[in-house]
Amino acid sequence: MSTKYKVSGMTCGGCARSVTNAITAKDGQAKVEVDLAAGTVAVDGSLSADAVKDAVEGAGFDFDGVAAAA
Amino acid sequence: MSTKYKVSGMTCGGCARSVTNAITAKDGQAKVEVDLAAGTVAVDGSLSADAVKDAVEGAGFDFDGVAAAA
Repeated sequence: MSTKYKVSGMTCGGCARSVTNAITAKDGQAKVEVDLAAGTVAVDGSLSADAVKDAVEGAGFDFDGVAAAA
Repeated sequence: MSTKYKVSGMTCGGCARSVTNAITAKDGQAKVEVDLAAGTVAVDGSLSADAVKDAVEGAGFDFDGVAAAA
C-alpha cells in the first residue's frame, strides 16, 4: 500500500535523500518517492503514518498529514 | 571540545537542519554549527567522530573526516 504524505521544508535533493533515509531506517523494505515541487513523500510499505511522522520530524522536516492514498 | 568535520552533500537550510537533528538525536546536549558554504559541521559535545559519522551518513550525507579541532 502506498500513501502520500505532505511534508514541508524539503527544498533540495539533499533534503529528499535525508527524508528517504530516515524512513528507510525504520523500514528497509519501504519504497519512498519524494516530490520536492509538490512537497509530498509517497511511502510504499508497512509503516504507519505515525512512524512516517516520527521519521520526517526526526530528520527536521514538517509532517503535515496524509495527502492521498496513491 | 568542539571538532569540525567535513560533510558533503548539504546544499540548503533543510540539509543543515537534518544533519543537526541527526547529531542532536545522539546527544541532546551537543551544539552543532553547519557551514554550508564550507561544507563543514562543527560539533561541540561528547560525541566521538564515529558517532558523528553514523549520524551524518544515516541522514544521507557524506562524512569526509575531521576538518579541524576548533
